[in-house]
Amino acid sequence: MTVNIFEVGARDGLQNEPHVSTQDKVTLINELAQAGVRRIEAASFVSPKWVPQMADSATVMDQIERNPSVQYSALTPNLKGLEAALAADVDEIAIFGSASEAFSQKNINCSIEESIARFKPVIELAKQHNLPVRGYVSCVLGCPYEGEIAVSEVVRVTELLHTMGCYEVSLGDTIGVGTPKKALQMLQAVSQSVSIDKLALHFHDTYGQALANIQACLETGVSVFDSSVSGLGGCPYAKGASGNLATEDLVYMLHGMGLDTGINIEKLSQAGNKICKALGKSNASKVAQAILTH
Amino acid sequence: MTVNIFEVGARDGLQNEPHVSTQDKVTLINELAQAGVRRIEAASFVSPKWVPQMADSATVMDQIERNPSVQYSALTPNLKGLEAALAADVDEIAIFGSASEAFSQKNINCSIEESIARFKPVIELAKQHNLPVRGYVSCVLGCPYEGEIAVSEVVRVTELLHTMGCYEVSLGDTIGVGTPKKALQMLQAVSQSVSIDKLALHFHDTYGQALANIQACLETGVSVFDSSVSGLGGCPYAKGASGNLATEDLVYMLHGMGLDTGINIEKLSQAGNKICKALGKSNASKVAQAILTH
Repeated sequence: MTVNIFEVGARDGLQNEPHVSTQDKVTLINELAQAGVRRIEAASFVSPKWVPQMADSATVMDQIERNPSVQYSALTPNLKGLEAALAADVDEIAIFGSASEAFSQKNINCSIEESIARFKPVIELAKQHNLPVRGYVSCVLGCPYEGEIAVSEVVRVTELLHTMGCYEVSLGDTIGVGTPKKALQMLQAVSQSVSIDKLALHFHDTYGQALANIQACLETGVSVFDSSVSGLGGCPYAKGASGNLATEDLVYMLHGMGLDTGINIEKLSQAGNKICKALGKSNASKVAQAILTH
Repeated sequence: MTVNIFEVGARDGLQNEPHVSTQDKVTLINELAQAGVRRIEAASFVSPKWVPQMADSATVMDQIERNPSVQYSALTPNLKGLEAALAADVDEIAIFGSASEAFSQKNINCSIEESIARFKPVIELAKQHNLPVRGYVSCVLGCPYEGEIAVSEVVRVTELLHTMGCYEVSLGDTIGVGTPKKALQMLQAVSQSVSIDKLALHFHDTYGQALANIQACLETGVSVFDSSVSGLGGCPYAKGASGNLATEDLVYMLHGMGLDTGINIEKLSQAGNKICKALGKSNASKVAQAILTH
């Protein structure tokens, strides 16, 4: 069976890093593609006032080698972002909602309803350009401000994004508080409204639970997983939201279970190590540490 | 449902550390007990020539506050070790075999059969003193020298230790290479020969898989898990065998799944942090990092 990795390191990962050269981003994205990653979040067309680290997104998209087998994705919160994404010729765009009212307010300065309303024209224009739209829902297993989030809210927001035209909705455990049983129950509930092949999991590893949570969720047939090479990144607006799941560790598990990702784990680990060296950070992937030091 | 943590940090963890004061070991063991840990591997009565770090085991056992609800365990590879353990009044002893012939040779300088023969008089003398004996089997999901290990070998050695009188056998993924499906299949195979309530899991986190592997194995009803506070330790003789699973991360998952360990995760994290500070090491538990920094 084939499963898909949606690699978020170059965007979700690097957007928290104060100084990354455009060349380092381009190298990372190219090396991810060479390692066999087929879905790469490569850019974010948000206001450079809010996220200055992503101000070079158009240049990055221009300078990378466009591998025809790879889907390059960009975050676009509004019409201005979408226009930039269209100009950069991305393969898909993404919008982000939340299952938590408080998180929505703090993260994107509007209510859940307002954010949905804002996305409508973005999705409509994207459709006119045949651009697939991916949706994110944050806080599906807990919120840094509200604590527990009702599964019914996760279902409601996911359904909304799906109905509006998102071809896939990625369910984010933004602060990584989830545990396997709760993760599975949440996914099962959502999949009663939105078919499992339209859902992805974006679990953070803040409490070390991401891999166990994914493992528990595999029984639903879910087959798309967001992760970040060498565990780069997290969310700058969410208290305690450090720690993306390292793609290397996820791929190691999936391969060990007989699931095919098309990814060369050695090349992937080397790509991660290179960007970590450029950042002066240690590699947070245990697999990469084990492979590259032994 | 109640499950049990068998805490190995004070022995398996600290035996790789070149300089730990006796007082730091005593403090750690006392604080683990205060955090609600009920099974603590506290000492190792092996030759100080081989493991000088454990030469103060008798003093440690003498200086700790003996909490009557806690079982304090000690590693005893031979009769001399057992005599020292008896003198120190430990609550149980442990012996260690391997499912890998090559690992047995390199780790304890004898064949699997020879090691079993050596343990016989140890187990017999322990029985005369009503001292429970725990068995360890290493390399149950792979060997640093042989690679894959046949499940039939794991079954055979586990059964041998059980038949000889080990009340519990702990199955060690010494180099942490296992993944969930293989871990579950191995455990299911072993549990056909030795009842699941006589088995424990000792999974290392070298490749970040330990928690996912345990999660997958829970369906068998297995309820004893070896782990190490703040992820201390590994095996000094095994290539790539760094990385015990952090107890805090395991307890967080188990509690999140509604399983009771009796452990206060906050106190446990503080105990781990204190020993890490004493060692000048960073805390490898993600839960401890998340709890103590936010």
